[in-house]
Amino acid sequence: MTTDAKILSALRANPDGVSGAQLAEDLAISRAAIWARIEALRTAGYGIEAAPHFGYKLVSWPDALHADDLLARLGKTKVIGRDIRVFEETSSTNDVVEKLARDGVREGVVVFAESQTKGRGRLGRKWMSPTHKGLWFSVLLRPNLRPQEATQLTVISATALRRAIKTVAGVRVEIKWPNDLLVGGKKVVGILTEMSAEVDRVRHIILGIGVDVNQDAAEFAPELRSIAASLKLAAGEEICRAELATEILRELDADYARIGGGKFSAVADEWEAACVTIGKNVTVHTGELKFRGCAEALDDDGALLVRTEHGLLERVIGGDVILEK
Amino acid sequence: MTTDAKILSALRANPDGVSGAQLAEDLAISRAAIWARIEALRTAGYGIEAAPHFGYKLVSWPDALHADDLLARLGKTKVIGRDIRVFEETSSTNDVVEKLARDGVREGVVVFAESQTKGRGRLGRKWMSPTHKGLWFSVLLRPNLRPQEATQLTVISATALRRAIKTVAGVRVEIKWPNDLLVGGKKVVGILTEMSAEVDRVRHIILGIGVDVNQDAAEFAPELRSIAASLKLAAGEEICRAELATEILRELDADYARIGGGKFSAVADEWEAACVTIGKNVTVHTGELKFRGCAEALDDDGALLVRTEHGLLERVIGGDVILEK
Repeated sequence: MTTDAKILSALRANPDGVSGAQLAEDLAISRAAIWARIEALRTAGYGIEAAPHFGYKLVSWPDALHADDLLARLGKTKVIGRDIRVFEETSSTNDVVEKLARDGVREGVVVFAESQTKGRGRLGRKWMSPTHKGLWFSVLLRPNLRPQEATQLTVISATALRRAIKTVAGVRVEIKWPNDLLVGGKKVVGILTEMSAEVDRVRHIILGIGVDVNQDAAEFAPELRSIAASLKLAAGEEICRAELATEILRELDADYARIGGGKFSAVADEWEAACVTIGKNVTVHTGELKFRGCAEALDDDGALLVRTEHGLLERVIGGDVILEK
Repeated sequence: MTTDAKILSALRANPDGVSGAQLAEDLAISRAAIWARIEALRTAGYGIEAAPHFGYKLVSWPDALHADDLLARLGKTKVIGRDIRVFEETSSTNDVVEKLARDGVREGVVVFAESQTKGRGRLGRKWMSPTHKGLWFSVLLRPNLRPQEATQLTVISATALRRAIKTVAGVRVEIKWPNDLLVGGKKVVGILTEMSAEVDRVRHIILGIGVDVNQDAAEFAPELRSIAASLKLAAGEEICRAELATEILRELDADYARIGGGKFSAVADEWEAACVTIGKNVTVHTGELKFRGCAEALDDDGALLVRTEHGLLERVIGGDVILEK
């Protein structure tokens, strides 16, 4: 952790205040250095009061994401979020992480952007990322998986996001196969899982996650209003993005440990229970193929098993699955 | 085609010679321009004689690879080799093509290097690429496949290489699953198939191919002499690398058209017939797993089906498969 992250961590751990002397001792730096960092944090928008005899006290924080604050909030994790980077603007956080991956950065690094100029979704579709309104981030992973097992990462992302959103925003989300999270039938989260692989082994996977957090209805394009929503609209109040971000990373870190260790079936069960697609009649578009059927279950690799009108069980790993009303 | 490629093409098509006037007319440029290009080709090592009344005649060519010459020799193809680039030295041709792929270059581009400083094989292993002794090249493809179908590209590469080597060097090679070509039990070709993908669709595939062509026995490291060989050692004579390179691209282009069009099973049959692994007792090392069995067949996705000692049929998609003596 950086000095700023350690200071913010200590301030959060001591809501009544902590003295400059104590901070200096704990961090093994001078009181003058502590004072300088406190000033820098104030400049970044952190409301830090200093009263004689009571020390420093954190009373407010900015809505903007701050890597040190995210690290301080997150605390210790096994893999995900040991390294967090925040950009004010990038083309796409997946592109930034792709470059880090090629440079050999170890797994678990997370890159957030306050806005993306070229955010993208599945199948090359565009993803809107309005400034400071959502969480637009990507996670680098290097799991020991075969290419066809990469779907497991999409599955754990969905379950982790679902638990985190319930905890922080109090909102129940449903999962729509393969990678959307819905509130009241409207999309609030998209997940894009990209990989670099040899034929028989994954080299790295980049999880790109977009969460619509604090948009008002008017902030969605008119043609999207019937199909997209934000957590704020669902919860009826503004959501703290930093709190949500760290809760997502914490849950994702927990679920990532269940990959590969033979514990994936428990995650798959949780996923299936929350999946609005299972048990529904669906129309499947996959490449040139189009067929109707009933979505029966998820298989071990995260593929959707659809019983067609002719009684055949089709294994669907991609394309579009449309729920029939 | 470039002007140089057109000139070389015309010279090859007219072994008795072609006049400067004819070349100028066919290429719609001045005779002075033709003369300047002929001079440039001579500087590059092409032996071009000019006799009064007989015109220009190609009598010799350099061993070095030359993009224009490769284009001229190859002629028209459907996809592979419409764009050929030759580097004297690169880190790895797969890295060069990876960059082209991200820049949006269309499929079919082929990058050759006369030597690679960081050539690599499967599972991150090092690949030796001595200058001018072999063919070290990579091909960019954008097939409409799912990640688990990428093995098909390794399969068509093996069959295409096998036919081309038979035609040009007169050498029969055997296929060792998944990606080696052998002569007399020694490796002469390695294929590395790398991909960039979403969970359900391949974005691009890079075929990295290394062919040991003209090394003498002494040019292999002592520890490799019992397991590696060159086509020259097998054929008993020097092989023209440019001729072999273009024959490989021609065969690869033909087999690539059989992917996705439902014609893959014919390639798979050809592959199986040439595969020294099928019908043999093998030891399989895959990740932490190790087991023995008999390699029975190849399945539709190019995976090896191995009947274990306990009678189970295991589907092997990666790792190492060692033939038992």
